Amino acid sequence: MIYFDNAATTPIDKSVLASFNDLVNKYFANPSSSHKLGLETTKIEEMARNQIARLMSCLPEEVIFTSGATESNNLAIKGVAFKYQNRGKHIITSTIEHPSVYNAFKCLENDFGFQVSYIPVDSNGVIELDVLKKSIREDTILVSIMSVNNEVGSINNIEEIASILKDYPKIMFHTDATQAIGKIDINYSKVDLISMSAHKLHGFKGSGLLIKRKRVDLMPLSSGGGQEFGYRSGTNNFPYEVSLAKTLRLALESQKDNYIHVKKLYDRTRTLLAQIDGITFNSPIDSSPYILNFCTKKKASVVQEALSLRGIFVSTKSACSSKKNAYSSVIASMGKSTFEASNSIRISFARENTIEEVEEFAKNLKEVLQLIK
Amino acid sequence: MIYFDNAATTPIDKSVLASFNDLVNKYFANPSSSHKLGLETTKIEEMARNQIARLMSCLPEEVIFTSGATESNNLAIKGVAFKYQNRGKHIITSTIEHPSVYNAFKCLENDFGFQVSYIPVDSNGVIELDVLKKSIREDTILVSIMSVNNEVGSINNIEEIASILKDYPKIMFHTDATQAIGKIDINYSKVDLISMSAHKLHGFKGSGLLIKRKRVDLMPLSSGGGQEFGYRSGTNNFPYEVSLAKTLRLALESQKDNYIHVKKLYDRTRTLLAQIDGITFNSPIDSSPYILNFCTKKKASVVQEALSLRGIFVSTKSACSSKKNAYSSVIASMGKSTFEASNSIRISFARENTIEEVEEFAKNLKEVLQLIK
Repeated sequence: MIYFDNAATTPIDKSVLASFNDLVNKYFANPSSSHKLGLETTKIEEMARNQIARLMSCLPEEVIFTSGATESNNLAIKGVAFKYQNRGKHIITSTIEHPSVYNAFKCLENDFGFQVSYIPVDSNGVIELDVLKKSIREDTILVSIMSVNNEVGSINNIEEIASILKDYPKIMFHTDATQAIGKIDINYSKVDLISMSAHKLHGFKGSGLLIKRKRVDLMPLSSGGGQEFGYRSGTNNFPYEVSLAKTLRLALESQKDNYIHVKKLYDRTRTLLAQIDGITFNSPIDSSPYILNFCTKKKASVVQEALSLRGIFVSTKSACSSKKNAYSSVIASMGKSTFEASNSIRISFARENTIEEVEEFAKNLKEVLQLIK
Repeated sequence: MIYFDNAATTPIDKSVLASFNDLVNKYFANPSSSHKLGLETTKIEEMARNQIARLMSCLPEEVIFTSGATESNNLAIKGVAFKYQNRGKHIITSTIEHPSVYNAFKCLENDFGFQVSYIPVDSNGVIELDVLKKSIREDTILVSIMSVNNEVGSINNIEEIASILKDYPKIMFHTDATQAIGKIDINYSKVDLISMSAHKLHGFKGSGLLIKRKRVDLMPLSSGGGQEFGYRSGTNNFPYEVSLAKTLRLALESQKDNYIHVKKLYDRTRTLLAQIDGITFNSPIDSSPYILNFCTKKKASVVQEALSLRGIFVSTKSACSSKKNAYSSVIASMGKSTFEASNSIRISFARENTIEEVEEFAKNLKEVLQLIK
């Protein structure tokens, strides 16, 4: 089996699963309980929070545990929009965001009277900073721009955007860093809100983070017992929180080595695919090496299926939108044709992938394309 | 160790943990991925959904997986309120709801212009049906009344409330059944929205359900990839979903036997505590046998601490509010004094508890109360 769909999800790290089991077997009390057993699990929870704060160079009280990046994105975007709507109802995002960002903005636009500016991207899938600058208004309260695009791997200049927004203290800056943290080195020190997910980094599904700077306030999506500093109520899932801290630590510790390894896979894949007739790349040459998106001139779903029969797993779109239709608004935003936007293939790497798999993949892809009419 | 805080949370069932590990080890693909591995996990997810539908006598498409009862409650309440606000902005709940319901209503009231009627309870902690009937207005769109109160165990007549609301098809009826499902036999067939949580039933923390009848529409809290029929986006945590199905099956299969066992513990505890000077019961005589709330005339936190030192774990309030202050608005709503509302103790049982533990507890409580000045 060759699994090249790591941007959709990754297998669990066995050591993370082992830690989870240890915790679940030894401790179970509700961290909100005031007796000794509850205080024990509170301590475990706080250790996880402190570890994440160190890893993310933030304060422990800036760490909000969530059920995943979709919740983190919604909490950041709707939370800021609802909290600060008295200051203004104009919000900004891009045309290539993940559905959990894009649809959160659509919800605010369609159902809550917000005005949204959607910043376009260039042919490399990178947002146009000039348009962003011109879109800022007196009543702008939020900008949300993803760090690394999940379909084509284009990397936005988050530091540059943060530095543009520095002059507008009323604007909160959020980034969906799901495909970036633990993979690509980006400086988030000037970003107000950062979302991430464990399961893209060999952690658990249903586990994520929102880093929220102290200066930012939010209206919670889930009201209740006041857990997570009041921003995200619900009994704390402390075994997941510890697992997330470990997932993040392992990813960051090996980030540099993994990057070098994955970059080799990426470069080799580009070289091999460039030799196959009819293949064009949607990913820019300087995309994240974890993601390579291309078009084969054949129907993507047919190519995917043929590869799948050979035990090679790739994606036709991001998993979060693959079931509805094949048309990619991300690729269309980059100025590609409707055929390309509807028939692109994404491969996405993880540390376990090998150069042999890349060779095998390219060989099979070539054969498959020759067989498809 | 005697753990009498099972209404806060319960230890994991080892067979549920084993199934979880099996799944995590064997499968990892994103159920939203369109390749073979994704379709495999979709199938697993659908098996879990179908099993829950059979157990809950509902349709598979009425099952929404969430991160727990807090999210389920917020999704039901805010989801209905936002979806149907054009029909009216009046919503009804009770004075004894869990913070995740109560604060969701407060949020709608304070931040989104809804009008809320809070139905009082009688001295038994049961909501006053006459007041409920009189509170219904032309513009009422939602009633949310909990099945079993989490602090005192009082049981509301959910069937009766559903039958009152049958005459008002524009009103959606939600119940927080977190302390009821798998414990108490209640007919939910006429209820529109039902919340529950896995970790109160020896399942995982961070796992819950919202059962939502087909006739009801919701605005999602988390927009995104459209998972869970569009009502709750985010990568499906299929190992948790299967674990929840198993948790629920085990609870329902043993519900009758557990009830008989726990009722014996409850009756014996009431008998023993009634013999201790100064103890009065906050739980009505016909409360859920899983929860017994009482007042000792001593400071509850001191009693709790003294018991904790003896390895006996009880609660002073519900876990979801225990850390902020000891005052219970639930107990105050029942007409008790401020002292009682601030100094009550909740013990809550599970199937593992024994009659010997009850005897031991009563003996220790008596000693502790004699030692406290």
